[in-house]
Amino acid sequence: MPEIVECVPNFSEGRRKEVVDAIAKSIASVPGIRLLDTEMDPNHNRCVITFVGDRTAVAEAAFQGAKSAVALIDMNTHRGEHPRVGALDVLPFVPISGMTMDDCVALAQSVGKRIAEELRIPVYLYEAAATRPDRRALPDVRRGEFEGLKVAIETDPDRKPDFGPAKLHPTAGACIVGARPLLIAWNVNLGTKDLNVAKRIAKAIRESDGGFPAVRAKGFELADRGLVQVSMNMTDYRKTSLVQAFDAIQDLATKEGVEIVESEIIGLVPLDAILAGATQYFKLARFHHEQILETQLWE
Amino acid sequence: MPEIVECVPNFSEGRRKEVVDAIAKSIASVPGIRLLDTEMDPNHNRCVITFVGDRTAVAEAAFQGAKSAVALIDMNTHRGEHPRVGALDVLPFVPISGMTMDDCVALAQSVGKRIAEELRIPVYLYEAAATRPDRRALPDVRRGEFEGLKVAIETDPDRKPDFGPAKLHPTAGACIVGARPLLIAWNVNLGTKDLNVAKRIAKAIRESDGGFPAVRAKGFELADRGLVQVSMNMTDYRKTSLVQAFDAIQDLATKEGVEIVESEIIGLVPLDAILAGATQYFKLARFHHEQILETQLWE
Repeated sequence: MPEIVECVPNFSEGRRKEVVDAIAKSIASVPGIRLLDTEMDPNHNRCVITFVGDRTAVAEAAFQGAKSAVALIDMNTHRGEHPRVGALDVLPFVPISGMTMDDCVALAQSVGKRIAEELRIPVYLYEAAATRPDRRALPDVRRGEFEGLKVAIETDPDRKPDFGPAKLHPTAGACIVGARPLLIAWNVNLGTKDLNVAKRIAKAIRESDGGFPAVRAKGFELADRGLVQVSMNMTDYRKTSLVQAFDAIQDLATKEGVEIVESEIIGLVPLDAILAGATQYFKLARFHHEQILETQLWE
Repeated sequence: MPEIVECVPNFSEGRRKEVVDAIAKSIASVPGIRLLDTEMDPNHNRCVITFVGDRTAVAEAAFQGAKSAVALIDMNTHRGEHPRVGALDVLPFVPISGMTMDDCVALAQSVGKRIAEELRIPVYLYEAAATRPDRRALPDVRRGEFEGLKVAIETDPDRKPDFGPAKLHPTAGACIVGARPLLIAWNVNLGTKDLNVAKRIAKAIRESDGGFPAVRAKGFELADRGLVQVSMNMTDYRKTSLVQAFDAIQDLATKEGVEIVESEIIGLVPLDAILAGATQYFKLARFHHEQILETQLWE
């Protein structure tokens, strides 16, 4: 089993394609890195780059991406729907094969330390890499966003970073680095302009408000399309499947008198997570992945 | 691109596991062959073995399978739901990569000739390998089945085989060899014991009765389960998708007051054919196969 770690940095740029391309290029040019996906979202003004490699290559590529983001993104002029604290906002490492979660925590620590020292950016460790319980959840670490954290980091001892200066980088802000299980980023778009519908549905399904385990959800407006969005992070699709979440949103939307227009997977998804939809649609019995022709030819 | 041809022989044995295992072993023991799937159906009393390799390996493995079937299956005592003319009933070659349909026709001709000469079995060429228009369609070649063909092959000049004696092999019958595009064998099981419901639905959807292009369908009884079955061959899922066929069966079943209990893919299915169900279920927009994690890691 080869050593594969996935890295899914979120950068605060989703509109200027040349900036996203430059960041992606700085990552992809590290030997041993395979760039898997780049997603830009102009409403969120955010991009998600997915790449894989062994731990040494991924550590270097993550640092190069951070360095490139510091040079190209100014948080003082950044506006977007998605909460954020820095140019390289979130940097998660995900064990895929030949790596444990502990290996990814160690990777997050060493890359986080290097970003703090060489780029002079305060770094917070989150999820499996968190050093305190109140830093496990990303929304807690991101509280106040770039604008709010600017003051809090210097005045509130609880907001002191794990590495680097207790002061935001003037243009690149802060950076949140961690290790987590494979996450599916998934948006369900609803045929209404009423943001409250998306917010009510997000609240009803997310774990933090008593909904489904391992589901994070927020409501967003897609102003340019006249839609609203339930934006989800499925943090463990074996606990709550995409089918369960979709069916729940469908029911709630119907009660609101609203239709689901479409859904969209951002970045990567494991085969069995997405196939569950086909199994449901076709009422498939006794189906196994080895029946998919490509899985046989690719082996 | 490696040379890959898929071979999907159908043998007239779906109950005696030791016989199916012995046939599969004779195929798999040919160097360069990868056995992908073995499906036994006791109601049909038939098994479908799927394997791939380059043309030389596949030609040898197909012959070894035929030889093994001749030794182990006696058509005089064979009973099952599915129509059949021989122990190795149908032997199709399917181009997957680095092979054209013409290459597979040539393969069908040479393997067919060898089966006829070395095993003394009359061989009919069908589909892309057919030598006459009335032998393109499998049901036409199989007309009368083993019992009826026994007489017809000796008396009707139109039933003279393409290779071998104009007389059935005493125990192994005849063999139908050909080349065809990738086919999806798919059964939809209905919650009724009324075989006529399955027959009416099959008739409504199959191409030969004015239904969907590239859909073959028959109604069967699943006596042991108290269900009936619409058994389909989707001969070109780009012409009629699984979603279109399923939706049509769903509508027709509802009109009959019957529910779809389950469906079952027999053997292999291309990724995009099955994913269409997930795309439909989740209303997925802008989804591409490269987003499936495994497709990236397997490359």
